[in-house]
Amino acid sequence: MKRLRIVGMGPGGVDQVTVEAVQALNEVDVFFVFDKGIDDLIALRQEILDRHTDGRARLHALPDPERDRDPTSYENAVSAWHENRAIDFEDAIAMLADDEVGGFLTWGDPALYDSTARIVERILARGNVSFDWDIVPGLSSVQLLTARHRIMLNRVGESVVYTTGRRLAERVAAGDTDLVVMLDGHLQCADLEGDWDIWWGANLGTSDEALVAGRLADVLDEIRVAREVSKERRGWVMDVYLLRRRTGP
Amino acid sequence: MKRLRIVGMGPGGVDQVTVEAVQALNEVDVFFVFDKGIDDLIALRQEILDRHTDGRARLHALPDPERDRDPTSYENAVSAWHENRAIDFEDAIAMLADDEVGGFLTWGDPALYDSTARIVERILARGNVSFDWDIVPGLSSVQLLTARHRIMLNRVGESVVYTTGRRLAERVAAGDTDLVVMLDGHLQCADLEGDWDIWWGANLGTSDEALVAGRLADVLDEIRVAREVSKERRGWVMDVYLLRRRTGP
Repeated sequence: MKRLRIVGMGPGGVDQVTVEAVQALNEVDVFFVFDKGIDDLIALRQEILDRHTDGRARLHALPDPERDRDPTSYENAVSAWHENRAIDFEDAIAMLADDEVGGFLTWGDPALYDSTARIVERILARGNVSFDWDIVPGLSSVQLLTARHRIMLNRVGESVVYTTGRRLAERVAAGDTDLVVMLDGHLQCADLEGDWDIWWGANLGTSDEALVAGRLADVLDEIRVAREVSKERRGWVMDVYLLRRRTGP
Repeated sequence: MKRLRIVGMGPGGVDQVTVEAVQALNEVDVFFVFDKGIDDLIALRQEILDRHTDGRARLHALPDPERDRDPTSYENAVSAWHENRAIDFEDAIAMLADDEVGGFLTWGDPALYDSTARIVERILARGNVSFDWDIVPGLSSVQLLTARHRIMLNRVGESVVYTTGRRLAERVAAGDTDLVVMLDGHLQCADLEGDWDIWWGANLGTSDEALVAGRLADVLDEIRVAREVSKERRGWVMDVYLLRRRTGP
């Protein structure tokens, strides 16, 4: 039986993978990765492999299909994109020999705003290829964000919401006061009313990591600049932040 | 300057620590741990140290102060408990030599429903002892839960809430449909109305890991039994679950 292992690579640092993930990486014959056209994202994965494996396995980049970025239905657009990814990925898995192990390298934790596991289920549902699969969890960028800022994710005994830039306004309108925001290319927090603290980070784990914290209204410009600097220096920027509504003065 | 490193040990498995955490563990001269009176929790930490360090460092158990489990104010009770912990911990840090490194081993990720970082800030605010400190993030049990069940934490583009057993009912009343529940010794989900799926896990990462998934109403008894079995076999049980409200039949 072919095997596929989805391995969380952590937030970006070469040593921010778990020992279990390193063991998994060393079982893999072919690594798959969707090529988003950013060579650096492939190179960072290669660095992790160079450091923690004997280099025996080959790295196979899959084309990342075009995605409708301005769809009438977000869910349908994502679904169509998953289907296209599934077809490409299915072909790649079919190339594995029967006793070989494929490895899919995902940033952060495969359970959080990542589509790999959903695509794998689509492939299995299509029924053209069969294989065993498992998931090796990885640190998410959120965990590195809180560690770098030396803060807790939650207030004592309180809840915290993981959400996206697209959903932020409605979550705040519903009364949420503690929010982790991911997938936000436009700093939607700039539009919030009320008094907030923010802990922000970009390209966490890389040599171009950027951190800003403070009262949202005071540090928003600093974050905008840091975001542009990261993008310029690295060619890409991935950021995440924690928002907490102030309760007192 | 003395140094203190708060190191996330991951959810329980000896190899579920990161490479960076292993490096941190090897810099430590004295490991601190609060003794909750469960020898097995100390032993699991010792296993991780035995596997990943040269055994040079000593393990120093701190008494875990009594905590009011039925307080009129939850926040005040936690605050009093933190203060008592801070006093004990301060004495322990004071014993470190000036160039020594103390390590505090926390289960899971230090940012999530853990009090170590808050206690460290209290100690520094008291001003009796000074030291540098940092946090090394660790995998949380939530990440192992989703990996074992091979599910995503979030639905496509949707939010997910981390909450506690104590807060679950009010979060559901407020309309949340995707919830991670921690610190729930009483399976508060049993009282929910509506149609839910649950992915539950206990003692994740240990040899007595237990997993149950299904429609909440159908598997609740199975979870209750699995919970008791884990408790009986291991002497303790720590569980976590993901709830997702069904939208269709």
